[in-house]
Amino acid sequence: MNTGYFPAPVEDRYFEDYVPGIIHRFGEISVEQAEVIAFASRYDPQSIHTDPEAALNGPFNGLIASGWMTAGLMMRLYCQHYLSAVASLASPGIDELRWLRPVRPGDTLSIQVTVKDARRSRTKPDRGIVTSYVEVMNQADEPVMTFTAMNMLLCRGA
Amino acid sequence: MNTGYFPAPVEDRYFEDYVPGIIHRFGEISVEQAEVIAFASRYDPQSIHTDPEAALNGPFNGLIASGWMTAGLMMRLYCQHYLSAVASLASPGIDELRWLRPVRPGDTLSIQVTVKDARRSRTKPDRGIVTSYVEVMNQADEPVMTFTAMNMLLCRGA
Repeated sequence: MNTGYFPAPVEDRYFEDYVPGIIHRFGEISVEQAEVIAFASRYDPQSIHTDPEAALNGPFNGLIASGWMTAGLMMRLYCQHYLSAVASLASPGIDELRWLRPVRPGDTLSIQVTVKDARRSRTKPDRGIVTSYVEVMNQADEPVMTFTAMNMLLCRGA
Repeated sequence: MNTGYFPAPVEDRYFEDYVPGIIHRFGEISVEQAEVIAFASRYDPQSIHTDPEAALNGPFNGLIASGWMTAGLMMRLYCQHYLSAVASLASPGIDELRWLRPVRPGDTLSIQVTVKDARRSRTKPDRGIVTSYVEVMNQADEPVMTFTAMNMLLCRGA
């Protein structure tokens, strides 16, 4: 996938490198049934995520991944390819997270990230807030999860 | 904590049992360093979540849990105590997730859930959407994460 738009790798990426309007695409990552069950057994113990037999009679006619595991797989790709490894200070939060389609064992996910806004802080000029629209896509290129992310990042040379 | 407001346990809880205005409090769950590192190594590989030594020099002066792990611990409590185990169809998504304070190994989390709205579907009258405001609190009763949840639930007898 195209990671070439960024002028710098994650190890040398700063606030200035997030240019509004640019679209990045990263991935892939596989959804494994054993991980779906293990994740949900700890973090989302519902039978549609933990019990393949019971899930057959559930609303999705089969086992689906916890939406929070989909978020976790997204975050792995986001850290590996998009978020600076040296300038990220924190995330204040996310907006309008939507789970649009079920994610099933055997699916392959990628992410498409659009830089929506990059605003330098007035009170702390060594940093800024980057707003990104994140789409998690399956192997059929259908969005399975979307949300808007906020990340606080240091400026180059701060 | 107070789970007495619900007229029915999670195994027999339906759309009608979510009454707007009622506040529920559930927990606790502990934040363990080994789990913080293991979770982040897979789902949020940033040194502030995976490397206690490096995190000492990071923006939080020590290891903190991935915000997505905090979400996972929240979801465990939410499933165990709040969300129906028999009537939950799906969640369309969440809004305005905010990570307000760092969560550290040794912290103990609980959740406070306020039923904000319960709206029966017009097109499918056997179900409705429940909107809930979720606050994750630490042992000092400070909110560490908040968001608004949406859950689609079957009505009793559907």
